[in-house]
Amino acid sequence: MNPHEHFMQLALEEARIASQQGEVPIGAVLVREGVVIARAHNRVEQLRNPAAHAELLLIQEATAATQQKWLHECALYVTLEPCPMCAGAMLLARIPQLYFGAFDAKAGAAGTLFCLTADPRLNHQVETWGGICANQSIALLQQFFREQRGTA
Amino acid sequence: MNPHEHFMQLALEEARIASQQGEVPIGAVLVREGVVIARAHNRVEQLRNPAAHAELLLIQEATAATQQKWLHECALYVTLEPCPMCAGAMLLARIPQLYFGAFDAKAGAAGTLFCLTADPRLNHQVETWGGICANQSIALLQQFFREQRGTA
Repeated sequence: MNPHEHFMQLALEEARIASQQGEVPIGAVLVREGVVIARAHNRVEQLRNPAAHAELLLIQEATAATQQKWLHECALYVTLEPCPMCAGAMLLARIPQLYFGAFDAKAGAAGTLFCLTADPRLNHQVETWGGICANQSIALLQQFFREQRGTA
Repeated sequence: MNPHEHFMQLALEEARIASQQGEVPIGAVLVREGVVIARAHNRVEQLRNPAAHAELLLIQEATAATQQKWLHECALYVTLEPCPMCAGAMLLARIPQLYFGAFDAKAGAAGTLFCLTADPRLNHQVETWGGICANQSIALLQQFFREQRGTA
């Protein structure tokens, strides 16, 4: 297993925690110099907050912990391609590298519907790699929505 | 003064509070059925949080207060055109109407650099009007940055 798959497995662990709590299973970890410095999962339902996506919570946690508003030298791993809000937050936090799992045809903003992370007009760009352990992320999401429909 | 200018004046009051606290002067208010239900200003420096923009704080405050993750029937007034993160958060919160002051050539995502608020591929669109009391917003921002340069 290469390091990127290793960190994506940790993000997938967070996604599974979300699923167990009735949240859409999306998880994320933040890595600096090979060390995980923050972990988070989607908590939209629990917090009744539409902005409580894994990536945004991760950025808020990491900047609060380090008292640094910019997360230079960090790589963000997330199981699903970020939405516009989360891609925008990564730009504001000056995160240099993004690794994501499944591509998101409905709202992906790191290459699929929008390419906010690599727009040369903005004052920061995020180097981005997609599709890491994507099948596992897709399987988790499909299982979650299948179960939701079953209990609805 | 029409109602939109009235609410934008309240958002400008929030922007002035931000300025007094050493923050880039941007303010916002959320209005439901003609009543202001939340007010916020930029707090990036104070909270050391790059995501602590006025609009995002406003959405988090309003959803926490109402325990509703969607802000149907609300209009958001903000003194500067939203960035991608904030425009994305408005989509997630299903806010139907946005009124903003100055256009933002550097990061505006409600028509200038991106048009996230009116993209037909997404599952929500925000009706948007820009340029309301724009000169007052621009004057506040220019004064702030002039003073910052003076004390740097």
